[in-house]
Amino acid sequence: MIRIGIYGYGNLAKGVELAVNAASDMELVAIFTRRNPEAIKTNSVMVPAINTDYVMEWTDKIDVMIICGGSATDLPRQTPELAKYFNVVDSFDTHAKIPEHFENVNQTAMVSGKVAVISVGWDPGMFSVNRMYSSAVLPNGKDYTFWGKGVSQGHSDAIRRIPGVLDAKQYTIPVESALEAVRSGKTPELTTREKHIRECFVVAEEGADSAKIENEIVTMPNYFADYDTTVHFITEEEMKSEHSGIPHGGFVIRSGKTGSNGEHQHIIEYSLKLDSNPEFTASVLTAYARAAWRLYEKGEKGCMTAFDIAPKYLSEKSSAELIRTML
Amino acid sequence: MIRIGIYGYGNLAKGVELAVNAASDMELVAIFTRRNPEAIKTNSVMVPAINTDYVMEWTDKIDVMIICGGSATDLPRQTPELAKYFNVVDSFDTHAKIPEHFENVNQTAMVSGKVAVISVGWDPGMFSVNRMYSSAVLPNGKDYTFWGKGVSQGHSDAIRRIPGVLDAKQYTIPVESALEAVRSGKTPELTTREKHIRECFVVAEEGADSAKIENEIVTMPNYFADYDTTVHFITEEEMKSEHSGIPHGGFVIRSGKTGSNGEHQHIIEYSLKLDSNPEFTASVLTAYARAAWRLYEKGEKGCMTAFDIAPKYLSEKSSAELIRTML
Repeated sequence: MIRIGIYGYGNLAKGVELAVNAASDMELVAIFTRRNPEAIKTNSVMVPAINTDYVMEWTDKIDVMIICGGSATDLPRQTPELAKYFNVVDSFDTHAKIPEHFENVNQTAMVSGKVAVISVGWDPGMFSVNRMYSSAVLPNGKDYTFWGKGVSQGHSDAIRRIPGVLDAKQYTIPVESALEAVRSGKTPELTTREKHIRECFVVAEEGADSAKIENEIVTMPNYFADYDTTVHFITEEEMKSEHSGIPHGGFVIRSGKTGSNGEHQHIIEYSLKLDSNPEFTASVLTAYARAAWRLYEKGEKGCMTAFDIAPKYLSEKSSAELIRTML
Repeated sequence: MIRIGIYGYGNLAKGVELAVNAASDMELVAIFTRRNPEAIKTNSVMVPAINTDYVMEWTDKIDVMIICGGSATDLPRQTPELAKYFNVVDSFDTHAKIPEHFENVNQTAMVSGKVAVISVGWDPGMFSVNRMYSSAVLPNGKDYTFWGKGVSQGHSDAIRRIPGVLDAKQYTIPVESALEAVRSGKTPELTTREKHIRECFVVAEEGADSAKIENEIVTMPNYFADYDTTVHFITEEEMKSEHSGIPHGGFVIRSGKTGSNGEHQHIIEYSLKLDSNPEFTASVLTAYARAAWRLYEKGEKGCMTAFDIAPKYLSEKSSAELIRTML
């Protein structure tokens, strides 16, 4: 049994907890929280909740620590620090800062001799793996990533900060005509804005000026001004009943050519339709925690991404069974 | 430069030739054929065509041999034999016999210390990789593979053997309603027959009894009898102008659940739409030839499948560049 620790206890961690408890080769041994452990109620009654101050007492009781902090401020600090003592996995997703995060984590993991797998979720993560395979197989081509339909937390928060707004949820939705153009083998140049529309559901305070709120949303720089944005005002009840989920998903499409004159077109498409963004991300993290342990046992060390890890390490199944049932 | 040999010179090999010549880190050094080399005309004027009898003279001049034989009788013999002297890659695709092929190839490759990568095309190959990742990430789920729309060579040949038939092409087409049911999150039990229809284009001899031919097709056991099969009679000219390509493709869909009561549904879908089945398969083979060489240089040996190989080894790009541009 691979002994798993969970570091942080938010939505993502709760998904990891479910995935680890469902795996027959893993055992959840502790959940670490910065809060008062007595105040949190986990879904695993037999597993202790421990304050992060005491994490060093667990170095020989945990095989892999799954770090469930946020990418903005938690992970850049937590992952390099915890990699000094544990094999770790994170879902760091600030794309532009991944090279820097990789270096920081690699430095401590190379010294400690531990394996640290970073940026494994769905984007970065499964989307990255698909971008990579597809571009290696079809080097003469172009790839496209579309996100959605799904909830963008940052954009929802931006709306919530507008005076008069009680609650808000923003969905990012791929532009169907752009998707179709790419699938048809055209290789248009598309900006993120041309690929996505933004749909907002807003609960306004009683008596608030909804026209003014709508105008503030659609003209908000960076977030909405350059997008095709629609705003719907709804009741608190509707928000609760219709928009309480955290769905997400998207598409990675590679359009490439082969032939002596590029006369043959090939389209590779990978898509996700997820009811729960955090639970799916957690499932990816958990599979890579298994890989981290196996690679550590093989004598590997240092920082790795999904690109460095052979698919077989993610599965509970033996190589022989994988070949028999999935190849 | 990775020095590549091509063994066999049919459609697949011609695709490999194009892919290797397009790769900036590979050099095609020889093409081996069982035919008289003088009689074959390759697309690479500077590359010698050599009779397979002389392959042993090339053991120190070729880094990876890409074997382009057929799965029925060529590869079971060629791959274990050539793995005694070369790093090799093949696209062996008889799913049921892969475990046996793996064992045979592994035995000779372990002795020679060479790397042998088998069954890398799109199914098995890229489809297998996607089945594997998806099932590791969503262990509580079910996967589905649909083939098409594409040309089935075996079924086309079966029609051609009917008296009165001059030429024939059979397309395997996924049943749209079955695809939609799976995508919607239903997890129906579907046989291959319930997932696919068969569409046949037939050129009949002048004066042939087309009703009789059609009846022979649709009632043919194993091939057509249990499928929804349609038959179109066309002219030789139509066959040439409309059906000369070798397109193929398909879908791998994983439908899985997470949540404390499986309340969240997730759909992972991977699809291929290929203008040229052999050229795409060749592109996959070529990327895995790169991987075979790199793994050999790292000191690895023995038989491997796509499950054993980290994605990064397939790409011309460095790890740093992959992280920066694709993660």
